[in-house]
Formats: sequence, C-alpha cells, structure tokens
Amino acid sequence: MSEVYVARRERLRERCAAGGSASALVSRPANVRYLAGAAPQGAVLLLGRTEDLLLCGRPPGDDQGEERPDDGLRVHLLDASGGDPAVAGADLAAAQGADSLAVEEHDLTVARHRALGSVAPRLRLDDLGGAVEQQRLVKDEEEISCLRIGSEIADQALGELLESILVGRTERHLALELERRLVDHGADGPAFPTSVATGPNSGRGGHRPSDRRVEEGDFLSVCLGASYRGYRCEIGRTFVIGTSPADWQIELYDLVFAAQRAGREALAPGAAYRDIDRAARHVLDSAGYADGLPPLMGHGVGLEIDEDPQLAPAAMGKLDACVPVTVEPGVHIPGRGGVRIDDTLVVRPEADGGPELLTITTKELLAL
Amino acid sequence: MSEVYVARRERLRERCAAGGSASALVSRPANVRYLAGAAPQGAVLLLGRTEDLLLCGRPPGDDQGEERPDDGLRVHLLDASGGDPAVAGADLAAAQGADSLAVEEHDLTVARHRALGSVAPRLRLDDLGGAVEQQRLVKDEEEISCLRIGSEIADQALGELLESILVGRTERHLALELERRLVDHGADGPAFPTSVATGPNSGRGGHRPSDRRVEEGDFLSVCLGASYRGYRCEIGRTFVIGTSPADWQIELYDLVFAAQRAGREALAPGAAYRDIDRAARHVLDSAGYADGLPPLMGHGVGLEIDEDPQLAPAAMGKLDACVPVTVEPGVHIPGRGGVRIDDTLVVRPEADGGPELLTITTKELLAL
Repeated sequence: MSEVYVARRERLRERCAAGGSASALVSRPANVRYLAGAAPQGAVLLLGRTEDLLLCGRPPGDDQGEERPDDGLRVHLLDASGGDPAVAGADLAAAQGADSLAVEEHDLTVARHRALGSVAPRLRLDDLGGAVEQQRLVKDEEEISCLRIGSEIADQALGELLESILVGRTERHLALELERRLVDHGADGPAFPTSVATGPNSGRGGHRPSDRRVEEGDFLSVCLGASYRGYRCEIGRTFVIGTSPADWQIELYDLVFAAQRAGREALAPGAAYRDIDRAARHVLDSAGYADGLPPLMGHGVGLEIDEDPQLAPAAMGKLDACVPVTVEPGVHIPGRGGVRIDDTLVVRPEADGGPELLTITTKELLAL
Repeated sequence: MSEVYVARRERLRERCAAGGSASALVSRPANVRYLAGAAPQGAVLLLGRTEDLLLCGRPPGDDQGEERPDDGLRVHLLDASGGDPAVAGADLAAAQGADSLAVEEHDLTVARHRALGSVAPRLRLDDLGGAVEQQRLVKDEEEISCLRIGSEIADQALGELLESILVGRTERHLALELERRLVDHGADGPAFPTSVATGPNSGRGGHRPSDRRVEEGDFLSVCLGASYRGYRCEIGRTFVIGTSPADWQIELYDLVFAAQRAGREALAPGAAYRDIDRAARHVLDSAGYADGLPPLMGHGVGLEIDEDPQLAPAAMGKLDACVPVTVEPGVHIPGRGGVRIDDTLVVRPEADGGPELLTITTKELLAL
C-alpha cells in the first residue's frame, strides 16, 4: 500500500509547489490519515523540502489494532513533554531551509497558528485551504471496498435487530445494541453516534436516543453506520411497529421513498450537486413539506462521515464518478413523527450500471 | 438555576471589561455550556453590550433529554443555511455598537477568525484566552454533586462487571458492556471511550480495546467514567485474573498503589500542581521506572474529561479547594503488562476531612 500514500503526497506536493509553497503541514486528522496511512492522536504530517515526516506524541501502531503509517514515511516522535507536533513541524520545516509553509487554516486555531509563527519567524505561513479534502473527494477502488465492507456490516447489524423483539425497549438500548453488533461483525466502531428514534421522535435527523420505549403503532427510524479501516458509511431506515401501518404512515412513507428514489436516480457523473438535492427536495416540497426540511439531501462520506460534496440547494460543483455520497431525505411532523430513508451510494457512469448502492437493506415499509 | 448562569456571565463580563473588551464571543462547547446551561451543536454565546445571545443552527432542547439553556438568555436561531453562528455573532456584536470583541483564539480556527473579521471589519478582535477555563476550575457544590453521581454510576457499572465471567471475553466486549451499564444506571453516556486492557496491554493509558481475550493469569486494567449532566468523572482499576497473582504482579501492584496513595495524600488547597505529580512519580522513579512513565499523574475533570489543572512536572499553579482532579499513576512493562490506578477526588481543606474520594470501588488487588 505504501505507493498509494507516496502518490497522494506527491500530488499534494505538486499542488503546493504550483501555489508557491515549498512545504506543507497537514494537521486535520482525516487528512493526515489519508496521506500517511495512519493518524495517531495529535499527529501532524510535514511535507518537507527534503523529507516527509509524521510528527507525533506517542509511537504510532502502539495500540493493538491501530493502523500503522506508511513505511516510506519517517516518524518523528516527540517526547511526552515535547509540546505541539505542529509547532515542532514548523521548526523542522525551517531547519530544512523552507521559506514558506502551507498550513490548514481551517483546522489550526489562531493560537496554534501564532505559535507556529513564533517558533519559525522567517517562515511565511500560507494557506493550504481544502487541498487535501479536494483530493479525497474521488475514491479509489480500495477505499470504496472499505466502504462496501462497512455497509455490509451495517446491513447485518440492522438485519439482526429487526429479528428481535422491539416493543418495550428504549431508544438508548436499541442504539447500544446496534453498536455492539457493528463491532461484533468487524467494524472499528460506529461511524457516528447511532440514532434510534421512535414515535414522535421518528424521522428527525441526528436524534439522540432517549429513554422512550418502542410502542405498538410507532414509526421507528434508525440511522447507523460502520467505520471500517477508517471509512464511514451510513444507512437509515424507517419501520412501523405492529401489524398494519396507519394510512398517514403509508402515505408519508411512500412520499419520502419517492423523494429518496428521485435523489438516487439523479446521481450521475456530471450532475450538479444542487440538482441531486433539488430532485429529492422537489418531491417533498410539492407535497407541502417545504418548511422544516433538512438543509441538505445528502453528503459525501469517506474518512469522515460528513465530507464534501454537500448535496444542498446552494452547493456549487458537479459529481464525479467514484464519489460516494448519501441520499437521505426525511420528513418530520412535530408531535407525530416521520420518515427518513438514507443510503450510501457510489456515483458510477451509466455504462457501468449507474450508481452503486452499498447499503442494500430493503426499503419496503416493513411492519415489525 | 438561571441565576447561576447569570452570575457566571457577569463574572466573565467584568473580566472582559477589565481587559478592555466591550463584548465577548465564546465558542468552545464546554465553555458555552458552562455559561449558557446548554450547548446545542455549533452554538456560540455572545456576551453583548446590550444583550446576551445564544446563537445556534437548530433549536436547543429540541431533542428529548437534551439540556435547555438558561431561560434568562435569548436564543437566536439561524436558519438551516444561515452559516457559521460565530460569524453571525460578530455581526450582531457590531450591530450592538461594540468596537471590540474578545474571542477564544485557542478554539477558533484561522479561517473562522478571518470570516469574523470580514463580516465586521470595524470590530477589533481581542483574545479572550482561557478566561472561561479559569472560571471553570473551582466547582460549586451543584457541579460536584453531578460528578459524585457520575462516579457512583461508574462504580456500579464496574462492580457489576466484576461479578460476571471474564475469562474468554474480548477487551472490546467488556468495554461495550461497561458502556451499556453506564447508560443503564442513568449516565448521559461514557465520559470518554472506555479502556479495557488485558495481559500485555494492561496498564497502558488510553489503550483502545482490541480483540484480545481475557486469559487466566492476566492483569486486567479498566478505565471508565460516566458523563452525568455533562460532568465527566474517571475511575481506573487493575485486577488479576485467576486464583493467585504472581509475585511480580503483587510487587508491581503494591508499587503503583503506593504511588497513587502518595498522590492522593498530597492533594490539599495550596499544594503546587507539580508537587502532586512529584509525590506520585517519585515512588515509581525510585523503584526504577522513571522511563516510560505517563507525562502527568492526574488532571482536572468537569465539563471536559481532561481540563485544567494538569498535574505534571512542569505545571505552574496551586490547587484550590473544590477543584476535582484525577490521580492516576501507572506502570506498563512492554510485553508483560502493568498496573494503573485512577481515582477522581475533590480537593478539600483538612478541616473538612481532606480530599473527598468520589470513586469508591476498592483498590485492593482483587483476583477474579
């Protein structure tokens, strides 16, 4: 795998050189991991003039199961009282004779940035901006394979939950059980805090599980994901508890399902981000649910659960092939509940069969 | 409770005024929560010239169980596409006629700080520094009561685990079970990722649970904590698996126990932070374990699990009464394992009985 990381760093180095920076300091953890193969806590990556270095406060791969950095990269271990690895990185960049260093101004705090300036006053600090995030947008097949495995794990955990008794159990318990099952099936852990929402809570994005118990007649909406080798996927489904859903439940479910399908079908290389959002949103708007809709209908996933692109009304840009995204419209009716349906898909050209659905749990309205 | 938050904000306002800033923008989540009673995701607090405002992207207390902000505070809700609450806060500060705004430079990124400057170019941005963190150091009895309840919950979860069969189970499973029990007993959730370390992993601070199974003869070290109403405590214990510990295990345990006791006994109002560290560290140093010791022997706890003070060799400052801290020395022998013992205590004057131990699980070497 080493050559993958070398190639990623080379691409970034070229971009920095084109922007006039001789060296770069990457501090955002997901970006460090992308370029170095591992990101021990607090580690930063220096793309130096003469050598690349991973600076960290404790040995990487020290924990069993922790990822190890690419062997092509020298690890510079600061001792326990060695202070901020970013400051040490600026110092080393200056020692390598760099006159400029591009840093991630969207990640470094003002206080850390000033500390970098103090340790190397002759070094010009430029802004690297979202260069690494841009590089991370389009995934290679190895990355997609991690997302695919993570999605299988999430599908399994969800499938097992559906076979168990649900009535009478609390949202918190169901969420904890799902997280345990994710780990049982080989996930590093949950990709984000698992959301389980019942009755009036159902259909709310990002609902934090409460002590409310599942009741007969409830909508139950669940959103979970697995992190597998650092890659994070997402699946959301809504079910109904009991033998026969009420008419309003069937209507609302069909509506959100239609919106989600419209969003999925709009996914194609070259499609504008905002058009995916509009395809899904329009279905809900037309049915009178314009108010209170989520700000976006989907987003990219990868080493972070919420990364570019944002599939939102004002988003600028167009999809590329091999970009994994979620499509996740939802409607929540205050006091009553609602529906949310969420998949992770990879954008693929029509010649390759169109969007690849990673989360394959059924989207029929199951009555449990 | 409202008057508590009003008083906290008043104290901060006086401090800002003394520093020459007419208004302040607090963005660090634990600081927002401390001053406002709640910190919905992304919320910032503006201490304005004419009015205090909590700026957030979605209604606070929207989720069942989520804390609600102090009613004395006006909530300014940004719509879904309203952008960064901190930027909106700077805009409002300027609209209130402030000429200066103190911001948390250790929290704001360079990019956000610049966005604040752009939206309100005539506003002078000062540094609020760690003013709120300083205010948070000494806890009131209400805060200590939350830590006490959290500690009871952690003690219960740990106690129940010890009654179950451990041999053959993985570190991951034990950690997940502990977290489930914390929630069962009323915690908001774990205070930090629960660490379970067996055999050669035992005694390592911050070990991430792996798939290693508990074996006969192992040391088992566990570190967990409950978050209760936002307050986070910590307890760590080491056990031995099987009927009779080996001699080296007893010796190492006794040594770490002696170090931890020395640290606990050094806790008193007026004691220098570094002297607590030295009291515990000296015991381990003298036994030949100077190398590889943790960088600090304890730290403050509260709304964050790792807050000031740091009980470390180079720390400056002295303890006050009503400061809750951990005392957590440990020794890890590579390839063999080790011992870590960790308590949360509140510094109290001798007249009040000396340090108050919140985590009361026995520190005898139990053979399980």
